[in-house]
Amino acid sequence: MSPKITTELLKQLRQVMKSPKYVQEPLQAYIVPSGDAHQSEYIAPCDCRRAFISGFDGSAGTAIVTEQHAAMWTDGRYFLQAAHQMDNNWTLMKMGLKDTPTQEDWLVSVLPEGSKVGVDPFIIPADQWKRMSKVLRSAGHDLVPVKENLIDAIWTDCPQRPCKPLITLNLSYTGVSWRDKIVALRSKMAERKVLWFVVTALDEVAWLFNLRGSDVEYNPVFFAYAVIGMNTIRLFIDGDRMMDPAVREHLQLDSILEPEFKIQVLPYGSILSELQAVGAGLSPKEKVWLSDKASYALTEAIPKAYRYLTPYTPICIAKAVKNASETEGMRRAHIKDAVALCELFNWLEKEVVPMGTVTEIIAADKAEEFRSQQKDFVELSFATISSTGPNGAIIHYKPVPETNRTLSVNEIYLLDSGAQYKDGTTDVTRTMHFGTPSAYEKECFTYVLKGHIAVSAAIFPNGTKGHLLDSFARSALWDCGLDYLHGTGHGVGSFLNVHEGPCGISYKTFADEPLEAGMIVSDEPGYYEDGSFGIRIENVVLVIPAETKYNFKNRGSLTFEPLTLVPIQTKMIDVNLLSQKECNWVNDYHQKCREVVGAELERQGRHEALRWLIRETEPLIRAQ
Amino acid sequence: MSPKITTELLKQLRQVMKSPKYVQEPLQAYIVPSGDAHQSEYIAPCDCRRAFISGFDGSAGTAIVTEQHAAMWTDGRYFLQAAHQMDNNWTLMKMGLKDTPTQEDWLVSVLPEGSKVGVDPFIIPADQWKRMSKVLRSAGHDLVPVKENLIDAIWTDCPQRPCKPLITLNLSYTGVSWRDKIVALRSKMAERKVLWFVVTALDEVAWLFNLRGSDVEYNPVFFAYAVIGMNTIRLFIDGDRMMDPAVREHLQLDSILEPEFKIQVLPYGSILSELQAVGAGLSPKEKVWLSDKASYALTEAIPKAYRYLTPYTPICIAKAVKNASETEGMRRAHIKDAVALCELFNWLEKEVVPMGTVTEIIAADKAEEFRSQQKDFVELSFATISSTGPNGAIIHYKPVPETNRTLSVNEIYLLDSGAQYKDGTTDVTRTMHFGTPSAYEKECFTYVLKGHIAVSAAIFPNGTKGHLLDSFARSALWDCGLDYLHGTGHGVGSFLNVHEGPCGISYKTFADEPLEAGMIVSDEPGYYEDGSFGIRIENVVLVIPAETKYNFKNRGSLTFEPLTLVPIQTKMIDVNLLSQKECNWVNDYHQKCREVVGAELERQGRHEALRWLIRETEPLIRAQ
Repeated sequence: MSPKITTELLKQLRQVMKSPKYVQEPLQAYIVPSGDAHQSEYIAPCDCRRAFISGFDGSAGTAIVTEQHAAMWTDGRYFLQAAHQMDNNWTLMKMGLKDTPTQEDWLVSVLPEGSKVGVDPFIIPADQWKRMSKVLRSAGHDLVPVKENLIDAIWTDCPQRPCKPLITLNLSYTGVSWRDKIVALRSKMAERKVLWFVVTALDEVAWLFNLRGSDVEYNPVFFAYAVIGMNTIRLFIDGDRMMDPAVREHLQLDSILEPEFKIQVLPYGSILSELQAVGAGLSPKEKVWLSDKASYALTEAIPKAYRYLTPYTPICIAKAVKNASETEGMRRAHIKDAVALCELFNWLEKEVVPMGTVTEIIAADKAEEFRSQQKDFVELSFATISSTGPNGAIIHYKPVPETNRTLSVNEIYLLDSGAQYKDGTTDVTRTMHFGTPSAYEKECFTYVLKGHIAVSAAIFPNGTKGHLLDSFARSALWDCGLDYLHGTGHGVGSFLNVHEGPCGISYKTFADEPLEAGMIVSDEPGYYEDGSFGIRIENVVLVIPAETKYNFKNRGSLTFEPLTLVPIQTKMIDVNLLSQKECNWVNDYHQKCREVVGAELERQGRHEALRWLIRETEPLIRAQ
Repeated sequence: MSPKITTELLKQLRQVMKSPKYVQEPLQAYIVPSGDAHQSEYIAPCDCRRAFISGFDGSAGTAIVTEQHAAMWTDGRYFLQAAHQMDNNWTLMKMGLKDTPTQEDWLVSVLPEGSKVGVDPFIIPADQWKRMSKVLRSAGHDLVPVKENLIDAIWTDCPQRPCKPLITLNLSYTGVSWRDKIVALRSKMAERKVLWFVVTALDEVAWLFNLRGSDVEYNPVFFAYAVIGMNTIRLFIDGDRMMDPAVREHLQLDSILEPEFKIQVLPYGSILSELQAVGAGLSPKEKVWLSDKASYALTEAIPKAYRYLTPYTPICIAKAVKNASETEGMRRAHIKDAVALCELFNWLEKEVVPMGTVTEIIAADKAEEFRSQQKDFVELSFATISSTGPNGAIIHYKPVPETNRTLSVNEIYLLDSGAQYKDGTTDVTRTMHFGTPSAYEKECFTYVLKGHIAVSAAIFPNGTKGHLLDSFARSALWDCGLDYLHGTGHGVGSFLNVHEGPCGISYKTFADEPLEAGMIVSDEPGYYEDGSFGIRIENVVLVIPAETKYNFKNRGSLTFEPLTLVPIQTKMIDVNLLSQKECNWVNDYHQKCREVVGAELERQGRHEALRWLIRETEPLIRAQ
């Protein structure tokens, strides 16, 4: 991977930062955030402005360009990748390390007095605007909204915004109709005494209307906004997608409906003016509910006194708690996904060991091929991380021709992959060795496994927030002086985004919502040695009620049920480092893989993969 | 404990809330916070305004009185106590429970439009003022500072503010002279580019000048403020305490010093006007550093543009990391404290079992008597919690004649107590049974013990915040559906406050500073059954470097060393619930108690207590 040469681009950007054609007053700095107008994590090519200007294309990062400097903030997952992809014009700001300044503090330290700092008001979330603008103002600078995006101004071959057909999901997938979702949302709105709710996140629009799209790779969403009133529904969406009879039928656009369920379809680009009209028509005490992560532009459309901002929207919270139809769909999707991975690992063992011709890219493609053979497969849920040896230490690695290594019997192979099926989203990581792992590799793997089990088997009171479980995943590593620099888990959508709020498992203190039965998160501790290898063991797990001997204050308890059912390579386990309880957990897990996935392999007539599964799920025996 | 009858007092308070003698405009609500002008947790009798108006005298709570209501906010430690001490005029607001409104939200829900809410600006911390005033203002109300305290206005027999003699501490106790502490502070000030630092917390003044006092029971502090400039030191303190030759010598008040170490002594009451003068004399870019918990009155004395506020002051952070002299002092203090408790428990076993005449109060007095026989004993470090049977479930119980139970062979006895010695502060909880505990009591005790050990033996990376360790203390309880509703640990001062910041171990996400070697915290999980019993096992532990097999990113690891060396009653342990590792921890701990405390008991000629210690530290044997 050679870095992108950005000298000329930065020169052009610095020119438009001073051009009266684009800015009222010259800018001394311009911020290029990662997201799109919906604060999405995964974005369409036309929104990859930060990657365009810097070369760094990881999923998280913010670029700031001043007259003298160009700096990039990103987190521990991307330190290596960003360093590889950016040229010498850029300074890497390693977030999470003690000495790394915040963007605001850095700006204050480098800017000349009375500077103007520009940003696209549609891209920056309102909460971030507020924080930055406060610090900048108190240091004598100004954060200013720049209507025209300055990256777009210099991006001559910027791709078109996608506008692909929609998929409608019926009740057997969603469990709840969009009408019932609107009713539930309005009841939450009434509870909080708000009259309007603005849906800005793409996955929230998709979930609310039981629709899916493919405007953004890996995330089955489509560009749209919605504004829900107590008696009105406005959907802002472009193209002829609303001409599709299936969509018209699904949304009952041509039916005679009670007026409060009649959907008014408006152009995507009219959201700001429509919202400004809503804002202008409000009477005192009438409130509009927005996410505090909605863009500054949309938030400003509502006068401050009328805004009701929350970190998580009622849709985000409702969406996180999966109903029985969604849970069953997720189970089915994970069984199919396991079938594909059994096929893959069986194939790899056959190919890697004698031939040595399988590269990371070939393995990733093969994984996709096996997945695509499964029913209701739609696409991958993220770019496959297929990494061997030192590439495994690059936490969010994606193989490209320049870095592509060949799998061998001498290196650890880490595969983090997943798919979108019409009935559910998967995300699984397995770490394998096709030869003989060293004692040290087995030791590290076993600590990671102990952490994985500690979270998966944890029992905790109803209402516990996920961040209180994070240290369980690290304890075995900590005992030996080891650790990993990423969180332990994220929420997972149901045929939606593979990363979703409002819950997660992380040492970072963020405003996570309490875990409750029906929520789905990942459990993925790891261990990484730069230049040498990476280990991660990831299952998607469902929060379920736990049976306990006692029940303090009648609160009830919760635990996790693994949805992912793919064998964990026993060859990598140092059994003597496991307690009997941990050993039993592995054996029970493998027994379940064998039964559930075995039956499906049998049904699909995949006998060789079934034999591989049986072999890989032999019980561990622990010396007493 | 019968509740305080407050009908007449509330009537008087509501009168002064409308009296033009005290307020410019009538108040619709008046807030009575817990603290004093220094935001102390433990306060002098003259500052116990909230207890005076409500009857509830726990260490944490805020009263709000409106024309119609009187409400008290307190946390889980005090739910039972507050309910017992307050009459029907009061509504208890249980903080931490889901449905309990915040003070601001409650005020907004009960106040008539355009209300004035009064508070003493010297008592309310600036950060709290800001939060409350924002919410109130956005709902159309006003938070107004009321110069004269309205409780003082109706408190006819309010005690005098104490003004007791000072104790000077020499280098053998403090390890660092006050001059060197000033130098270190000024270097922190220079780093942050501030010109002035205002010391408002009583323990910070005491620590900075290596002085102690006895103005507040249990906390060896004295009423004072200090304002440190780059070349000036101003100490605001009353009385003839500065006439004491030892104090004059200690502070070198009569020596010819470099001007920057010359202490200017000013009256306690002149802080506000002096600070206003400092504020008025500032040039642009000159900043004054204050804790964001300093009072609203003092914070307002500095114009907003010149304030530099942080949650923790550099003194708070420096004070938390104990140097070698302080650590050695803390070790000595804990050995003496253990001697006293061995004597006590030996005495209790002799008295309780055959006689049945020892009450909670007698036991507490006896504990104090034994402690007072130890060298350098000053006073207790908090009101002894001596509680048997159901009283043990009242987490911060203090025995009074009305509640005083007799210890018996049928009930669990919980003793949480500690002392101030000139060389250190102690805080220890032991839970004992003088007869035969039930299997259930042993089971619960053993889960609490497992949690205690999980924290005490934890190894974690340098820079880990204490809240990441909290779940370790709960895991064994959670597995059985049990839990406790308080944090796991607090910072402990060195011959200073028994509760101090900036570190702790709690599920509550507060801005705790990372743990580092030399910090001292408590480790005190528990389990409580209302109406039945309470269990808590508490040691004070020192953060020390840990030796680990590996050293990820060269970060280094930490663990804890118990300073408390008092046997944990093995009779209460169900050995079969312990792992071999946990069993070894108990045996190693008891071996250390035996060696270290045994030697001191021997030296002091306390042979009977020594025999008790030997008996109580017999190794546990676990069935394989």
